Amino acid sequence: MRTRPLKVALLGCGVVGSEVTRILTTQADDLAARIGAPIELAGIAVRRPHKVREGVPAELLTTDATALVKRGDLDVVVEVIGGIEPVRTLITTAFEHGASVVSANKALLAADGASLHAKAAEHGVDLYYEAAVAGAIPLIRPLRESLAGDKVNRVLGIVNGTTNFILDKMESTGAGYSEALDEATALGYAEADPTADVEGFDAAAKAAILAGIAFHTRVTIDDVHREGLTEVTAADIASAKKMGCTVKMLAICERSADGRSVTARVHPAMIPLSHPLASVREAYNAVFVEAEAAGRLMFYGPGAGGAPTASAVLGDLVAACRNKLAATTGAGESAYTQLPVSPMGDVVTRYHISLDVADKPGVLAQVAMVFAEHDVSIDTVRQQGKNQGSGDEVAVEQGAGGRRAGEASLVVVTHRASDAALSATVSSLRKLDTVRGVASIMRVEGE
Amino acid sequence: MRTRPLKVALLGCGVVGSEVTRILTTQADDLAARIGAPIELAGIAVRRPHKVREGVPAELLTTDATALVKRGDLDVVVEVIGGIEPVRTLITTAFEHGASVVSANKALLAADGASLHAKAAEHGVDLYYEAAVAGAIPLIRPLRESLAGDKVNRVLGIVNGTTNFILDKMESTGAGYSEALDEATALGYAEADPTADVEGFDAAAKAAILAGIAFHTRVTIDDVHREGLTEVTAADIASAKKMGCTVKMLAICERSADGRSVTARVHPAMIPLSHPLASVREAYNAVFVEAEAAGRLMFYGPGAGGAPTASAVLGDLVAACRNKLAATTGAGESAYTQLPVSPMGDVVTRYHISLDVADKPGVLAQVAMVFAEHDVSIDTVRQQGKNQGSGDEVAVEQGAGGRRAGEASLVVVTHRASDAALSATVSSLRKLDTVRGVASIMRVEGE
Repeated sequence: MRTRPLKVALLGCGVVGSEVTRILTTQADDLAARIGAPIELAGIAVRRPHKVREGVPAELLTTDATALVKRGDLDVVVEVIGGIEPVRTLITTAFEHGASVVSANKALLAADGASLHAKAAEHGVDLYYEAAVAGAIPLIRPLRESLAGDKVNRVLGIVNGTTNFILDKMESTGAGYSEALDEATALGYAEADPTADVEGFDAAAKAAILAGIAFHTRVTIDDVHREGLTEVTAADIASAKKMGCTVKMLAICERSADGRSVTARVHPAMIPLSHPLASVREAYNAVFVEAEAAGRLMFYGPGAGGAPTASAVLGDLVAACRNKLAATTGAGESAYTQLPVSPMGDVVTRYHISLDVADKPGVLAQVAMVFAEHDVSIDTVRQQGKNQGSGDEVAVEQGAGGRRAGEASLVVVTHRASDAALSATVSSLRKLDTVRGVASIMRVEGE
Repeated sequence: MRTRPLKVALLGCGVVGSEVTRILTTQADDLAARIGAPIELAGIAVRRPHKVREGVPAELLTTDATALVKRGDLDVVVEVIGGIEPVRTLITTAFEHGASVVSANKALLAADGASLHAKAAEHGVDLYYEAAVAGAIPLIRPLRESLAGDKVNRVLGIVNGTTNFILDKMESTGAGYSEALDEATALGYAEADPTADVEGFDAAAKAAILAGIAFHTRVTIDDVHREGLTEVTAADIASAKKMGCTVKMLAICERSADGRSVTARVHPAMIPLSHPLASVREAYNAVFVEAEAAGRLMFYGPGAGGAPTASAVLGDLVAACRNKLAATTGAGESAYTQLPVSPMGDVVTRYHISLDVADKPGVLAQVAMVFAEHDVSIDTVRQQGKNQGSGDEVAVEQGAGGRRAGEASLVVVTHRASDAALSATVSSLRKLDTVRGVASIMRVEGE
């Protein structure tokens, strides 16, 4: 084993950073054996140097992150601060001073991955970020390397633990969204400001990263269609159950049917209970990958948390260190296909639409006509009493038309249609006198 | 892009080899873009050159595999022949002539992986074998690289599709072993001679490979305890159901509690229906990995078949080609822990034992005494009529002792105990006059 240790600096020492430090210390011998040289922790940049951090050597702490990445003797910089700036500048500076970078920063990678990759390549160093998507689950590396000889057509995943926890609670207890969110907050699964999770920003960043890698093109978070889960109701979940489905917050990256473009989107959707993603409970993550030769693969595990994220960071760190020792780099960005990202209107899928309608003869015929006018084919129609999901369902067959005074609820499930056609259909439906309101629209995926 | 193509030779052109050839041809541009240089298929060694192989260029076929690997201008040799010899010699010769090797050969890797790795390292080339375990599922690379900074404590998996198909059929239809095997054979899931699958040799080879990588030590197939599934009965499966379990053929690699040794074994076992592996149906494979920081991860997908296996082979081929271009190699064997493999007697788990006993007072007390004498603690006892699994169960509580003329069946589920203690217990039970026979012993895992 070579004597000179590999010098590693850490930017950030929160939940993940502390865990990385702990493992670097307690597993030092194993890491050295696996890398071929010991790791020396050269410095840790923090904002609050006087905060007590158990197991973190106080003499390594500094508030001057810029000076740390400019040292010039670092082999690898591990970034676990998060956010865009000052992190982007720090990472770029690290590259310029010859260090490879391991990052867990989904927001930055999804916003500006291409320029970071270019900068790393320019300076002959690595940029790894397994921890940015789905925590401990090996996903970036399998997509980039194990499937490098295959053609990925779809990535469909639960990549946000907070929203999966909320939906799982709603499903298992019948709770509404607010109640489930409160429980998630109380248990530490949701942050005080849950916006990034519940509005889908976190999942959208991950979808952008996954789509770029899966399709060898460039996708940023701005390319990802995003809908949050705040409007999912207990009635939606009850309605999903009736269809043999469950509601999940999904990140979906797809190659178009003609292969000339891709789409990336994040939204709540119904999936059949028989789909492997349906049984992903609590805050777990799971990602389904469909590739032409490999078929359907699934990767499952904890998507967040200090230790799982640290596991992913350390896997990347070992890889970056091995490359430094061998004076080489791993595969860089692969964006050669330059496939454009199509708008949401081009996405083709199925829809579950719940309408509040006047309860009188002819309504179903009117509604069906609107769908037909927009070439959206109906799979099933279900008419039920206003108190959806309570079990007091009436007249079920298409054409039967429940007869009750006042209002009724009509649930339509379509065959595959473009999002644009569906939107146009819904606009027309809203104009019907007999349609009092569109209670919910949810996509049906995974079939 | 550099002009000189990377020269690749293929050893074997059966189901997997044909698929590799097809993808090399149809996806040539994508592969070239991902590697950074085109691949030139330099030759294909086959036994029967005149067999019609659609899409395989006849002019590339040769029966002289030795001359092919000795060409000296090959960058990578892909081996999809299988078996120990002449493959070992061919691979070694390829290394000696400067070629990296991608192999799908579990038998060879499990028998002699260490010497092949040493030979590859000696000649500065790569040896990759993702396809040797669980077909298309990325597993070797995630274990070797993504989890390189973590400590794996257990690998628990369904790694043989044939036996999973048979058990799934037995479970879903109530069929016996022979009937289910016949169906597997008719559908092409089982070979004419199913020995390698049903006796666990195939799974044992995979367990040896996984254990070696997971624990950074050397494990060969001879170190793996192996039991086939030919003795699993419909009664066992019915009994598992009563416990809220299902029966799966598992490969289990574990680090001992004191961390000083490892074990590797392959046998049918009961696992709770709530365990993610319980819902793996038909011929699918899935592997559960438990690591200290990452927690519980699962990898799921098709474990065999031409296209899935080709996907894994091509991922390795891209990696080997990239390394050749960069004049480097990937990480080699990691066996630094030198942890010994303990015998099966040291394995600690739970057991489900089904006894045929005389149906008279005091039998349960006698049986319980034998367990106590060997320090094997009983969790539950269930007594039932001879016609197991038919639902005509009688007296259930421990100590109640069903009273029927003739024989009864006693099902004992233990707490955790060593395999040695359980074996000693069973030997003693067989000596009791009141125990007419030991109908089955099955381990209970995944809890």
